[in-house]
Amino acid sequence: MPSVRHVSHAFLERQGLTTVFGNPGSNELPFLAGLPAGFRYVLGLHEGAVVGMADGYAQASGRPVLVNLHAAAGSGNAMGALTNAVSSRTPLVIVAGQQVRAAVGPEANLANVDAPTLMKPLVGWAAEPACAEDVPRALAQAVFEATLRRRPAYLSVPYDDWAAEAGENSPAVLDRRVERAAAPSPAQARRLAEEVAAARRPALVLGGDIDSAGRFEDAVRLAERLGGPVWAAPSAFRLPFPNRHPLFRGVLPAGIAPVCAAFEGHDLVLVLGAPVFRYHEYLPGRYLPEGTRLIQVTEDASAAARAPMGGALVADPGAVIDLLTDRLGSPAAPPGPYRPVPAPARAEGPLLHPEQVFAALRDELPGDTAYVVESTSTNAAWWRQMDLRRPGSYYFPAAGGLGFGLPAAVGVALAQPDRPVVGVIGDGSANYGVTALWTAAQHRVPVTIVLLRNGTYGALRWFGGLLGVPDAPGLDIPGLDFTRIAEGYGVCARQVGGAAELRAALAERPGGPRLIQVDTALTTPS
Amino acid sequence: MPSVRHVSHAFLERQGLTTVFGNPGSNELPFLAGLPAGFRYVLGLHEGAVVGMADGYAQASGRPVLVNLHAAAGSGNAMGALTNAVSSRTPLVIVAGQQVRAAVGPEANLANVDAPTLMKPLVGWAAEPACAEDVPRALAQAVFEATLRRRPAYLSVPYDDWAAEAGENSPAVLDRRVERAAAPSPAQARRLAEEVAAARRPALVLGGDIDSAGRFEDAVRLAERLGGPVWAAPSAFRLPFPNRHPLFRGVLPAGIAPVCAAFEGHDLVLVLGAPVFRYHEYLPGRYLPEGTRLIQVTEDASAAARAPMGGALVADPGAVIDLLTDRLGSPAAPPGPYRPVPAPARAEGPLLHPEQVFAALRDELPGDTAYVVESTSTNAAWWRQMDLRRPGSYYFPAAGGLGFGLPAAVGVALAQPDRPVVGVIGDGSANYGVTALWTAAQHRVPVTIVLLRNGTYGALRWFGGLLGVPDAPGLDIPGLDFTRIAEGYGVCARQVGGAAELRAALAERPGGPRLIQVDTALTTPS
Repeated sequence: MPSVRHVSHAFLERQGLTTVFGNPGSNELPFLAGLPAGFRYVLGLHEGAVVGMADGYAQASGRPVLVNLHAAAGSGNAMGALTNAVSSRTPLVIVAGQQVRAAVGPEANLANVDAPTLMKPLVGWAAEPACAEDVPRALAQAVFEATLRRRPAYLSVPYDDWAAEAGENSPAVLDRRVERAAAPSPAQARRLAEEVAAARRPALVLGGDIDSAGRFEDAVRLAERLGGPVWAAPSAFRLPFPNRHPLFRGVLPAGIAPVCAAFEGHDLVLVLGAPVFRYHEYLPGRYLPEGTRLIQVTEDASAAARAPMGGALVADPGAVIDLLTDRLGSPAAPPGPYRPVPAPARAEGPLLHPEQVFAALRDELPGDTAYVVESTSTNAAWWRQMDLRRPGSYYFPAAGGLGFGLPAAVGVALAQPDRPVVGVIGDGSANYGVTALWTAAQHRVPVTIVLLRNGTYGALRWFGGLLGVPDAPGLDIPGLDFTRIAEGYGVCARQVGGAAELRAALAERPGGPRLIQVDTALTTPS
Repeated sequence: MPSVRHVSHAFLERQGLTTVFGNPGSNELPFLAGLPAGFRYVLGLHEGAVVGMADGYAQASGRPVLVNLHAAAGSGNAMGALTNAVSSRTPLVIVAGQQVRAAVGPEANLANVDAPTLMKPLVGWAAEPACAEDVPRALAQAVFEATLRRRPAYLSVPYDDWAAEAGENSPAVLDRRVERAAAPSPAQARRLAEEVAAARRPALVLGGDIDSAGRFEDAVRLAERLGGPVWAAPSAFRLPFPNRHPLFRGVLPAGIAPVCAAFEGHDLVLVLGAPVFRYHEYLPGRYLPEGTRLIQVTEDASAAARAPMGGALVADPGAVIDLLTDRLGSPAAPPGPYRPVPAPARAEGPLLHPEQVFAALRDELPGDTAYVVESTSTNAAWWRQMDLRRPGSYYFPAAGGLGFGLPAAVGVALAQPDRPVVGVIGDGSANYGVTALWTAAQHRVPVTIVLLRNGTYGALRWFGGLLGVPDAPGLDIPGLDFTRIAEGYGVCARQVGGAAELRAALAERPGGPRLIQVDTALTTPS
C-alpha cells in the first residue's frame, strides 16, 4: 500500500504543481522528503517573500501554484502577502505543516491549534483532514477549491500523516479533474447583447481578471467594435488593455465622485472582470450619473453581491467578450493611431523625475518586458510615460499591500524565463519583501530591480495632505542603501545618477539578477 | 466637545502608553496626527519587525505597549510575530486603521472587512466599535483586555471616527482603572502548602511567566527553602532562575519521555508560571513517573484546562511563591556554590565553535547584559557556556516563530537604555526581522547583534535527521552577508574571525547599534 506522501506527490505531479515555493520548519520536512525528481523547490527566506514569489509565478503562468509553509508562525508571516493574492484572485495551494496529531490539542510548541480558523478569513477554504487517510483527497480538494474559487486555499497536515498508509481508495484521486462552466445561457447572452447594442454611448471598464484570463487581445477586439472609451477599473493590479490605445482613457480614479464624473454622458457602463469598484480615497457623491446604467460581468460572486449599484451577471467575462464581439459585427471606424508619449517631466534640482526613469525603461527595454510595480507615489508618472501593448505587461499589489512587488518580480521571471522582467520598487516598499533578492541570486533569475529612492513614504505624505493631517510621524525613511542590502543577499547592485547613466545600465543584459538604485524627486500618485 | 482622537490620546497618556511602535498606512494617519508632545513614535519598516520590537519592549518594561498597524495587509504581515507574543503572554495593544465606515462594506481598497474575525484566532480579543462615539471606551477595553488576558488585543477603528465628537460620557474613560486579584484563598493556600510540605522529594519547574512577572529572585528564595532541583519549563522563552545556580538542572527537554525521565524519583512536581508542557519533538511515553504528582500554578486558565495531566490552580504564581516561601521556613542547608563553566568546546577546522562565541560574550560583557537569542541550532552550546544571574537576562521566541530576536533586541534596548543588550541571531533567523536594524540605526539604539553564520537552517537539519528525512530541500542558505545588509540599513557592521578578534570587538562600547558577524561551525540544539 503506498504512503500518503507517495500518493500526494503523484497527484501534484499529475496536476502539474511541481514548482514548490516554500520556507520550511520542522513540521514540513516529512512532506518535502522524497520529492520526485521533476519537482523544483524554491526557497524563500521569509514567508511574505515566498507568497509574493508564488503569486507572481501563478499570475504569470496562469496556473495554480503550490506553496509550502510552516504552521502558525510561518503561515502568520504570510498573511499580509495573502491579502494581495486574494484580491488578484490567485489560486495558491498552500500546504502547511502541523505538529503530530497527538500534540495539537495539548498545544505542543509549533502546533497550530485550529489552523483552519486562523486562515479561513483570508483564504476562503481551509481544512485539516480528520485522519491521515483523507489527506490525498483533501489535497485534491485544496487544488480544486483554489482553482474554482480563484482564491488561495489552505491545507494543514499533521506531519505524522505523510508516512501513513494511503488507503485502498486513494489512487482514485489521481484521476480527478474538476472544472467550471461559466458561459451565459443563450437567453442571458441575447439579453446582454441587446442591452449593449441598444446603448447610444457605451463605455467599457476592464478589470485585472481580463489580463489574468489571457483576454487582453480579445478585449481590444471587443473595444474596437464597441468604439467607445475604455478604462481600467480603479486600483488596477494588471493592465487589461494597451495603455496608449486610442480608445483607452486610463485607470479610473479610485473615488466615488471622480468615477461618476468620468462616466458622464454614457448611458451604459459595461464592467468586465472587476469588482464595482475598488475605491480608495473617500470622495462621496453619486455612484453613477443620472441616466447611466451599469452592468458588471464577473466570475466573482461575492463581488457581484456586494456591489453598491448596477446589474451583474456572474459569468466568465472572457466568454462574454467572445459573444459580444461576435454579435457586434465590424467596427464603424478604425480606432486611429496609438497616443504619443509626452516628453518626460523634469524635477527641479539634481534628482531625476520618475518620468525620466520610466522613459528610460520604455526606451531601453524590449517591448515585451513584464513590469512588476510597487512604487505607489509614482503612479501618475508611470502611466504618463509607459507604452505597454502586450498581455501580462503589468503587475501591482492587488490589495495595496506592500511586499508583493519585489518577490513577485522574481516569481514572474521564474515563470517566464524568456521574457524580460523588471521590478519597479519604491524604497518604502522594498523593505517588506527584500529577502526575495536572495532567491533571485540563488536561482540566477534574470530580473532587474529598479529601486526608486526618495527617502519617504511618498504616497502617505500625499494622502496625509489630502486628509488635512500633514504632521503624522513615521513618514520619512532616510538612510537606506539598497545596493548594500542587495549585495548582502548576493545580487549585483549599483547606484546610478543621471538619465544617461541609467539608460546605459538598462541597456546591459546581465544573465542574473541585478538591482539599480536611483534617487528620485518626490511626486504624487495622481 | 472634544474629538474621539483627543480623548483617546488623553486616555493613552494617562495609562502611560506613550511609546507607539508602528508602520503607517493611509488609514492610520488620522490617529497619528496631533499626538501630544510626550508621545514617541518608533517606526518599523515591516510589521513583523514592529511587533517584534514592541514585544521586546513590553517584556522588558513589564508594561502594555501600543502598536499601530495598517488594516488587513499590515495586520496580516504582523501575524507571524503575534504568535510569539501570544505564547509569551505579552500585552500588546494593537490599534489598526480601517477604511472610512461607508467604504468597509463595499470592500474599498484597504478596507479590512470583518477585521476582528481576521485577528481573533491569535489575539484573543478583537473588536471594531459600532460607532465613533464608542471608540474611546473600546480603546480602554483593548488596554484592559490585553492586560487582564496577558495577550495581544486588537482594535480596528474606521479612520473617519478620530475627528468625530467624543460624546458627553467619553471623559469617564480617563479615570478607569482595572486590575485583577489572583491570590489563593486562605483555604487554597493552606492546602497547597500542606501538599508541598508533605512531599519527600519535590521538584520545581519554572516558566517564563516567573521572569516576566519580576519573580526571578523570589523564585530563588523559594527554591532554596525547598532544597530540591529546579528546571525551566520546556521551550523556555525567558530564564526564570540563575542558570548556574547549584539547584538548577537546566531547561527541561521538550519531549514527553525525557521529561518523564527527568522527574524520576520525585513525588511532587510543582510547576509555576508555565503551560504543562510545551513539548516539541514527539517522543511518546508516560507523562509522569509512577507515583509522581504534578501541580501547576498559572494565571493562564487555558493552559490549566488543556494540560494533559496533573492538578492546577489558576492563580498568580508570584503570590504562591510568596506564601510557600513564608510557610516553608528556613532552608535546611545552604545550596552551595554556583556551578563552574566548562572550557568551551572547539570545532575541527578553522570555524569558531558556538561555545567559543558564547564564552566570549560571558567574559567580555557586563553581568547584567540582557540577551535576546534566536539561534536555534546553538541552544545546547548556549546553556553550557552562559552564566546568567539577573532577572530579564534572556529572551527567546516564545512560539518558536523566527523573526522575534533581532527586533526584540532593539525593543529591549529601547526599554532599558541603561542595560547592555545583545541579540544572538542565527543567519537563518535574521532574515525574518532584519529591517529592525534600520530602526536601531535611526534611534541610535545601543544594541549589539552577534550574527552567527553557519550557512544552513541548522536546527532543521538536525530535526530532519531525527525524523529520518535527511533529504528535504531548502535547508541551505549560502551567500548571505549580514555586514552588507546591516550597512544598507545604516548599522555599523564587521566580520570577525577568531576568538581573540571577537573578544576585542565585544570589549568596545559603541554608542549606537552594531552588528558582528562570525562564521561558526554547525552544532545541534541538544
